[in-house]
Amino acid sequence: MMPVGFRYAIGVEYCGSEFHGWQSQRNAQPTIQGVLEEAIGFVVNEKVELKVAGRTDKGVHALGQVAHFESSAKRSEHQLIAGSNGLLPPAVRIRWVRRVPFDFHARFSAKSRTYRYIVCNDVVEPALMRWGVAWWKRPVNTEDMHSAAQYWLGERDFSAFQASGCSARSPRRRVNSIGVARSNQYVKVDITANAFLLHMVRNMVGSLRMIGEGRCSVDWAARLIDSRDRRQAGPTAEAGGLYLMKVEYDEVFDIPDSNRTMPPFDR
Amino acid sequence: MMPVGFRYAIGVEYCGSEFHGWQSQRNAQPTIQGVLEEAIGFVVNEKVELKVAGRTDKGVHALGQVAHFESSAKRSEHQLIAGSNGLLPPAVRIRWVRRVPFDFHARFSAKSRTYRYIVCNDVVEPALMRWGVAWWKRPVNTEDMHSAAQYWLGERDFSAFQASGCSARSPRRRVNSIGVARSNQYVKVDITANAFLLHMVRNMVGSLRMIGEGRCSVDWAARLIDSRDRRQAGPTAEAGGLYLMKVEYDEVFDIPDSNRTMPPFDR
Repeated sequence: MMPVGFRYAIGVEYCGSEFHGWQSQRNAQPTIQGVLEEAIGFVVNEKVELKVAGRTDKGVHALGQVAHFESSAKRSEHQLIAGSNGLLPPAVRIRWVRRVPFDFHARFSAKSRTYRYIVCNDVVEPALMRWGVAWWKRPVNTEDMHSAAQYWLGERDFSAFQASGCSARSPRRRVNSIGVARSNQYVKVDITANAFLLHMVRNMVGSLRMIGEGRCSVDWAARLIDSRDRRQAGPTAEAGGLYLMKVEYDEVFDIPDSNRTMPPFDR
Repeated sequence: MMPVGFRYAIGVEYCGSEFHGWQSQRNAQPTIQGVLEEAIGFVVNEKVELKVAGRTDKGVHALGQVAHFESSAKRSEHQLIAGSNGLLPPAVRIRWVRRVPFDFHARFSAKSRTYRYIVCNDVVEPALMRWGVAWWKRPVNTEDMHSAAQYWLGERDFSAFQASGCSARSPRRRVNSIGVARSNQYVKVDITANAFLLHMVRNMVGSLRMIGEGRCSVDWAARLIDSRDRRQAGPTAEAGGLYLMKVEYDEVFDIPDSNRTMPPFDR
């Protein structure tokens, strides 16, 4: 397809619990893609189609999602941000817009994605942010979880964490870093990889939970990935605790860093 | 009134946006007090009346609220926590229960209360946690805000920050500490005082905003408190950004520390 005018990249923040995931579907409304395409389409006065870095599932949130679209309309960054945000539901916000060259692709140019998974690990479930954290009542050993996760670094076959229905052509991915840490009663799992299979983060977190609770040994993590067998892994962790934090691109594209964090509630 | 059996203290966390404030009112339902008295009353099988450390307004949240009630029923801590939480709406959770002596009073024994106010200070409003942070578009200078706030330390007449309708007999309170700090795009204001007047924190924050935005000088903070005139102060900051973090008591009561924080979203 020939360039039709301009290509724009956008940075998006959203609360996933208010949508049926990123991707437009025939029978599930609303989707994040759907409301964004409608709002942007109104501002540029023509139909647009978004390509996205990470197609987040239903219930998954994003602070640093990146997408792009093409349009024959020339609009300033401010026009696109203010115009679209004025039309979007409050649970979705465009944080920045950049004109990008046609060789930029939100999905295929991405060098890595970083996800964070957040767990409230306490006897009593949280009253605040129930949509935004998983609740694990039983105490977990985060040092064991962290050690176990290091077995999954590097370029590997991640079939053990791949959901059925995943459309990926290969189960191989490159995990650059995994860290598990505790902050008071919260446990956070940070994972950066070149790309992810369907439910890969949530299946990894569900397996780390088995280790953290002492149901499986740290070494089991090594045998698990070698098994390439989804049935060996732990249950898929719930969607609400997962956040797409950041997508990285080559510096040449000058894509803004996702600097959005969350409020400072630490003591 | 004679002791009727036992006095129990409870620690409570709640999301204020789902209630009409703490206090039971004839025409506004639900209230936090109302749902708690109903749940606890069911567990102890008699009507109970809660006395609370901080009567938070509509929309104000709490991580470390403390209240007490009396009952002729002897119940274990676990029975009260698990039984009540099973009956409460998910936006309210009892975090701990303690049998306390009859000279403990959630309100009158409290030595200090600590509130935190959270602002998202960014051009684009937040999509996540919209119920839990105020949004100030215009950048504020937090150093100036912090300096100005130091004029309000100590035992003073806080009439300038007292809402009309406040039932306090005296406008004098003792502010132990105020800190204003930035964490990425968030601004947090932490205030500890022996007690607070109606809307006192929100009026202080609204006035600090005037200074942060450069509309008023740092020294204005000193003239403002001396004026004892509510009309001189800034507008009341919105309720959703405010959290009751902690209530402190004499060690003799052995009241649990509110260790509940919020999820780690910092980078």
